[in-house]
Amino acid sequence: MGENRFVYMDHAATTFTKPEVVEAMLPFLKDHFGNPSSLYSIGREAKEAVETSREKIAQALGAKPDEIYFTSGGTESDNWAVKGTAFSRQKKGKHIISTPIEHHAVLYPCEYLETQGFKVTYLPVDEYGLVKPGELEAAIRDDTILISIMYANNEIGTIEPIPEIGKTAREHGIPFHTDAVQAIGNIPLDLHGKDKHIDMLSLSSHKFYGPKGVGALYIREGIEIDNYMHGGAQEKEKRAGTENVAGITGMGKAIELATANIEKHSEEIRKMRDRLRAGIQEIPDCRLNGHPEKRLPGNLNFSFEYIEGESLLLMLDQMGVCSSTGSACSSGSLDPSHVLSAIGVPPEISQGSLRLTLGDANNEDDIDYVLEVLPQVVGKLRAISPFYKPASVCEK
Amino acid sequence: MGENRFVYMDHAATTFTKPEVVEAMLPFLKDHFGNPSSLYSIGREAKEAVETSREKIAQALGAKPDEIYFTSGGTESDNWAVKGTAFSRQKKGKHIISTPIEHHAVLYPCEYLETQGFKVTYLPVDEYGLVKPGELEAAIRDDTILISIMYANNEIGTIEPIPEIGKTAREHGIPFHTDAVQAIGNIPLDLHGKDKHIDMLSLSSHKFYGPKGVGALYIREGIEIDNYMHGGAQEKEKRAGTENVAGITGMGKAIELATANIEKHSEEIRKMRDRLRAGIQEIPDCRLNGHPEKRLPGNLNFSFEYIEGESLLLMLDQMGVCSSTGSACSSGSLDPSHVLSAIGVPPEISQGSLRLTLGDANNEDDIDYVLEVLPQVVGKLRAISPFYKPASVCEK
Repeated sequence: MGENRFVYMDHAATTFTKPEVVEAMLPFLKDHFGNPSSLYSIGREAKEAVETSREKIAQALGAKPDEIYFTSGGTESDNWAVKGTAFSRQKKGKHIISTPIEHHAVLYPCEYLETQGFKVTYLPVDEYGLVKPGELEAAIRDDTILISIMYANNEIGTIEPIPEIGKTAREHGIPFHTDAVQAIGNIPLDLHGKDKHIDMLSLSSHKFYGPKGVGALYIREGIEIDNYMHGGAQEKEKRAGTENVAGITGMGKAIELATANIEKHSEEIRKMRDRLRAGIQEIPDCRLNGHPEKRLPGNLNFSFEYIEGESLLLMLDQMGVCSSTGSACSSGSLDPSHVLSAIGVPPEISQGSLRLTLGDANNEDDIDYVLEVLPQVVGKLRAISPFYKPASVCEK
Repeated sequence: MGENRFVYMDHAATTFTKPEVVEAMLPFLKDHFGNPSSLYSIGREAKEAVETSREKIAQALGAKPDEIYFTSGGTESDNWAVKGTAFSRQKKGKHIISTPIEHHAVLYPCEYLETQGFKVTYLPVDEYGLVKPGELEAAIRDDTILISIMYANNEIGTIEPIPEIGKTAREHGIPFHTDAVQAIGNIPLDLHGKDKHIDMLSLSSHKFYGPKGVGALYIREGIEIDNYMHGGAQEKEKRAGTENVAGITGMGKAIELATANIEKHSEEIRKMRDRLRAGIQEIPDCRLNGHPEKRLPGNLNFSFEYIEGESLLLMLDQMGVCSSTGSACSSGSLDPSHVLSAIGVPPEISQGSLRLTLGDANNEDDIDYVLEVLPQVVGKLRAISPFYKPASVCEK
């Protein structure tokens, strides 16, 4: 059993590239290879492809095309937003507000800025990973120059109260950045509607069925930010470097597909996820991490006591199931998840955590299959765990 | 005439992606979509592809795989090398040495550093764009912490005396970075041989028939440099961000193809280039910019008096010939070329400059065709120029 199964439940790590997206990219990997900065015809064609993609992304987010800047991915977008804003506004003050559950692409730039004389307040989060807007209000100082709080968490899926956070930021005239890498394509966004208080927003193509190596930063008109990538005159002289034309074109197609009928599609994913969740919750001694309701439609994160997440992951891999123990980006590190620590999960329990993130690769059969193999795998691992109390062994 | 011709002579701006390269990329745009940081099988496959590409790049450059770090392109590599080194070594000093003919991806980071309290000496270059190693020696101070001098110039093709420059840098214990974006694939490099004094080297895939949006920075073992992209644990925790697996794989294949038989292949390009050059030099009132011999094999850069390069370019485009007036990256700007200014070309003459860069898209027919249409186009433009002396009208 399992030898020929392939069940991909790690959509938060990366997604497959949709065939229509690859199709849209191919001409720019083949004949249409011009440099968008070149003035002759194949250069202009490439430029037009970049601008068409910019329009698609703007439309998907409720933004203006002029507010979209292409980058090499979510990490660059986060680095640019955090460091670019900090350096451009440092004469006004050197205080930044963020949270302890941000992706490392926000946390490490913050830590870097601390070495450069900036001060960062990491707002506490509750047991579900939620920021309380009142705590944000209390943390704001006269020298606060940036607030960076993620839209939805990549490990536990918790969706932050972005409209309230943004409103508070705007009332104090402080630029508000959000890492929306996990949100785009999973929940609807509207930067000139409900999300109108967001000033900068990071997105990453490969999280919504586009190619890897391309992303964007939304920068609201009028927001002051230093350049991060210095050089050529690309992106209205704000982000240098020859444009990744094929990648940008793929990203435009991907966001178009990912945001069409997003409410209906999210609901389908949510339903599958909820059935999986209910099934997993029958396994004894397991705990759901993150908010029970305010979470991304495809996200599940469980801690299974007395076992190690990495063993769980590897045994699931042998059964053809792709999952993760937390953020893929930290898999090189053996430290317990900083997100689970921040919501108060003790290290010995966070070690046994498993993230399953559903998406377009999944169907109901996948749910059946995981509900068949996961209890077995958990049972086997507990059977060899010296810490597990035999009384509560998971039923086979 | 010209309607169906397509002659691409702008290889310094970008190159077509070779079919074998696209072929190598496709699996990673399709089924093999795993995140290299993921621990399950399709993640490990992606990781292996990245490491195989790293080995190919190391081999092509005479480096060790551990010395190659993937980036989003030449611009990021330059930004990282210059700013990363400056910030990591600022306690030792804040003086940098570069040249006025660098690509903007080096010049603008230098200018940025000047706003952060660093001091930059721009070494003068001679009429051909050559740095004199003696001038470098004289410019070195106790607080010099970085030397960044390009391998070969992107506009005029001049190849700098890198071994001598590197030797001087090494004798003084100063890290030496070179932007080799234009050199790779055009002239042989050997980082543990003739180029052994280079400590950091930037490369960009789309300049050697690989995809856009991916590049690398070579960092010699033991060289101290701050991270530039902060976040996940990728690239041995030195460059965060999900790897562009397809792009990296394509880049590996591209460098393998571009450096196989490089001497023989460069010689073929050089021969075609020399025939084109001899033909163009029969047009009156034109001047070759850059060194007559010490230049990239595919590069030509001419100034045609009394006409404007942009008009020349657009008329050539109508005849199916892709060319440029200088760096593609600066085409948004109307300023005269900073490179031509630095080698003493007066603005009214540098305005009439044309760069033709040959490569794998060209054959002898292309040379014939350009030698047929270029004199006509120059003649037409001069005929309508109020400054041109009718006595020396170019023959039709």
